[in-house]
Amino acid sequence: MTAADTRFMTLALALGRRGMGQVWPNPAVGCVIVQGDVIVGRGTTQRGGRPHAERVALDQAGDAARGATVYVTLEPCAHTGKTPPCADALIDAGVARVIVATGDPDPRTAGQGIARLQAAGIAVDLGLMRREAERDHAGFLKRVTAGRPVVTLKLASSLDGRIATASGESRWITGTQARRAVHALRARHDAVMVGAGTARADDPMLDVRDLGDVRQPVRVVLSRDLNLPINGRLAQTARQQPVWLCHGPDANPRDWQQAGVETLACDLSHNQIDPLSALRALAARGITRVLCEGGGHLAASLLQAKLVDELVVIHAGVALGADGLPSLAGLGVRDLAQAPRFRLDRLSQIGGDVMQHWHPV
Amino acid sequence: MTAADTRFMTLALALGRRGMGQVWPNPAVGCVIVQGDVIVGRGTTQRGGRPHAERVALDQAGDAARGATVYVTLEPCAHTGKTPPCADALIDAGVARVIVATGDPDPRTAGQGIARLQAAGIAVDLGLMRREAERDHAGFLKRVTAGRPVVTLKLASSLDGRIATASGESRWITGTQARRAVHALRARHDAVMVGAGTARADDPMLDVRDLGDVRQPVRVVLSRDLNLPINGRLAQTARQQPVWLCHGPDANPRDWQQAGVETLACDLSHNQIDPLSALRALAARGITRVLCEGGGHLAASLLQAKLVDELVVIHAGVALGADGLPSLAGLGVRDLAQAPRFRLDRLSQIGGDVMQHWHPV
Repeated sequence: MTAADTRFMTLALALGRRGMGQVWPNPAVGCVIVQGDVIVGRGTTQRGGRPHAERVALDQAGDAARGATVYVTLEPCAHTGKTPPCADALIDAGVARVIVATGDPDPRTAGQGIARLQAAGIAVDLGLMRREAERDHAGFLKRVTAGRPVVTLKLASSLDGRIATASGESRWITGTQARRAVHALRARHDAVMVGAGTARADDPMLDVRDLGDVRQPVRVVLSRDLNLPINGRLAQTARQQPVWLCHGPDANPRDWQQAGVETLACDLSHNQIDPLSALRALAARGITRVLCEGGGHLAASLLQAKLVDELVVIHAGVALGADGLPSLAGLGVRDLAQAPRFRLDRLSQIGGDVMQHWHPV
Repeated sequence: MTAADTRFMTLALALGRRGMGQVWPNPAVGCVIVQGDVIVGRGTTQRGGRPHAERVALDQAGDAARGATVYVTLEPCAHTGKTPPCADALIDAGVARVIVATGDPDPRTAGQGIARLQAAGIAVDLGLMRREAERDHAGFLKRVTAGRPVVTLKLASSLDGRIATASGESRWITGTQARRAVHALRARHDAVMVGAGTARADDPMLDVRDLGDVRQPVRVVLSRDLNLPINGRLAQTARQQPVWLCHGPDANPRDWQQAGVETLACDLSHNQIDPLSALRALAARGITRVLCEGGGHLAASLLQAKLVDELVVIHAGVALGADGLPSLAGLGVRDLAQAPRFRLDRLSQIGGDVMQHWHPV
């Protein structure tokens, strides 16, 4: 592999990331087609999951694809769904070489995409920037291999870890720019999830605002007993933007279903909705990336179950004190050695606030 | 003022900052002497407060000071203490011009240093980089004008604002590099202060380690009833490095005095040691810069009394949950509008931790 190969794959990865949150249940793939030194096609999987990135790039390249090298962030599909397989499209276009970042474990592809290309005499290389691709496709891969989406946990709090004052006031702790960054974060996820307490206390919309034309995330609330106001903003807008309620086995979801809400019966653990059960129910419906925005109890139960794949912490320049509401409920950590540890990924100032991206270690 | 003037004053300020924490009760002044374009003398106020920066720079310059321009971060002193006044030393050396960043409000100087220079025919300019100088000399200025030192509050916690697990384990939440940064922070302060609970729980040394030869800070503990173990590490080392105990009016300090501890009787407010009373007692003994390292109750009382001049927050990549010990006790904040707000000054990654410097707004 040459430096140019890495450059083109880096571009393909960047194109792929544009689809994050927009293409579920499909992976957010990127594709670049190069003839000589010239980029003749670029593709991103389109909103809702099709056309696929390869199809978009091939259409852009037209005849220039013949004899070209294709950089694609995930193994081209080999199965006929609503569209013909991308492996066949690449063969038909007469490309000479395909460089794939990482394989697709979906049993309908799982090496068959690459095998089909090779059988047609196309040179295939696998593994360029595999780690980056696996990170970008983590939600899709986790859904295929583990039956659950990846979870980003957002904790936005005061410097001392509080999300509301003693009287419950929480608007606004962070500044407008941080709130805008949260909307961008929502847009990169398939679903936004909160616990019942947060839904009751904040009556949130959980939508993406002021970021142009985006696919809105599914809004998910976990409520064992469905003890939520049916005249809240989520239920009132359920026919415009999906609302899914994860509830316990004893709740009666009929009123909610009539309001246009999708209801998902989940298992309990420790007398609460089992977070893995809820995530599996979301994955079964195609969700690959979930952003959890609280509250403290849901956040704690995700951390305790080791279900947090990325942690986004936003600290506002304000102190609220121990009489405020904590961002994280009790974790039952006695020894420091048991506490969930994280590695810093990115650090930035956003307006007057500090944003940190952490990964579990 | 020219760009060169600003450059030389910037150097003088940097030289002055080297003395922070090392020169109390004196100000940490910096001085640069320039002949033509050539720096012929540099001075920092020396450990313990003398010789002053001007004297150091003049000694370095020797005859080259004649006709030179002097950049000094604080008005040269005009009174004879243990050494003759710096204003006279500058006159005797025959300098042509003195550029002063900011005036010295000490009533023994208060404009008389400048007046004495001018009377000797030296051109004096006042105010170059005044804001930076006022920030650097904040502790000295606050002591002279308000009778208290400046306070830096350090909050080192988990991402969710906890300083110990439910069982009290706190070693180590932050990493070695962050702890080293805390030692550097201690070295830049005249005194390090903790509450009685922290002294009991951690039995801390509160000294500066592994930073070479530095003046060790005074170690201050606030304890209304002197309910502290007299065989703790602080008391046991009081004759090697000062320990000052701020106590309430009803405590009996005799045993502590016999152990070599200095005891300071303070007023109470809300049945606890009044933090301003304690800070005034420190200022009366010459302290200009105090680093408070907790615990949560002392930190909260300082914030409530608006006595925090700088906030240093260190977040480790770990979550401890609401059953852990909070970094800040209750503040009684009901409305967000009343909560203490801070402006971000500096943001950095230190090892695996995040360090933030904030100023109150």
